[in-house]
Amino acid sequence: MEQAKLQFIGILHSDITSRMDAPRNYTHSNKIGTLEIYPEFQEGLDGIKAGQAIVVLFWLHQASRDSLMIYPRGDKSRGLHGTFSTRSPIRPNPIAISELNVLSITDNQLEVSGLDILNGTPIIDIKKKI
Amino acid sequence: MEQAKLQFIGILHSDITSRMDAPRNYTHSNKIGTLEIYPEFQEGLDGIKAGQAIVVLFWLHQASRDSLMIYPRGDKSRGLHGTFSTRSPIRPNPIAISELNVLSITDNQLEVSGLDILNGTPIIDIKKKI
Repeated sequence: MEQAKLQFIGILHSDITSRMDAPRNYTHSNKIGTLEIYPEFQEGLDGIKAGQAIVVLFWLHQASRDSLMIYPRGDKSRGLHGTFSTRSPIRPNPIAISELNVLSITDNQLEVSGLDILNGTPIIDIKKKI
Repeated sequence: MEQAKLQFIGILHSDITSRMDAPRNYTHSNKIGTLEIYPEFQEGLDGIKAGQAIVVLFWLHQASRDSLMIYPRGDKSRGLHGTFSTRSPIRPNPIAISELNVLSITDNQLEVSGLDILNGTPIIDIKKKI
């Protein structure tokens, strides 16, 4: 088996609509948005509380998957880097990791802060922060 | 689009062959092993150096994907928890995040320490640690 199928568990609603608007990464962001978890996965949220930090994995559905050498932040003056030595969204499996703070939870909607991800991006996992 | 396909970029070689042998997580481990990156993805390693910390995503191919409520560490005395409030491998998309230290790199082989993952587990991504 050389492949596996991801199921999307939800979708992000944020006011970040272009990469130009996106903070450099979650450590540089105080942007607020909502994780909408699809009803069939809502039960898995049990135990998450407001005030908590969570780790969220997103599937960067707009990212190119076919380059292994990239310019960090698109800056050609820095030269080409192997994508696995960077946080570039351009990579064979375009998964982003964000550490977000939970502001509130209502049913299947988590209001979070710290976003650096585009509006409409699929969510693939949520974990407790170690 | 409600699904996406992952490509495996490599495979882990470690001496952890059962969950009983596995450390609780990467912060509790000094176990050493090798990330074998498939040759077609090797170029993406450019810039990773010995002594560096990296973030590695694994696809936990043996994990069950069909429970949203789990007993943490299989301990029934702790009661059922929503899987997204835990680090359990049982989750809709069984992706593990490990922070590992690079001991050496030779071609497409990265020797790493800090492992808490079973031998033979597929690798899906490597990122710079923030």
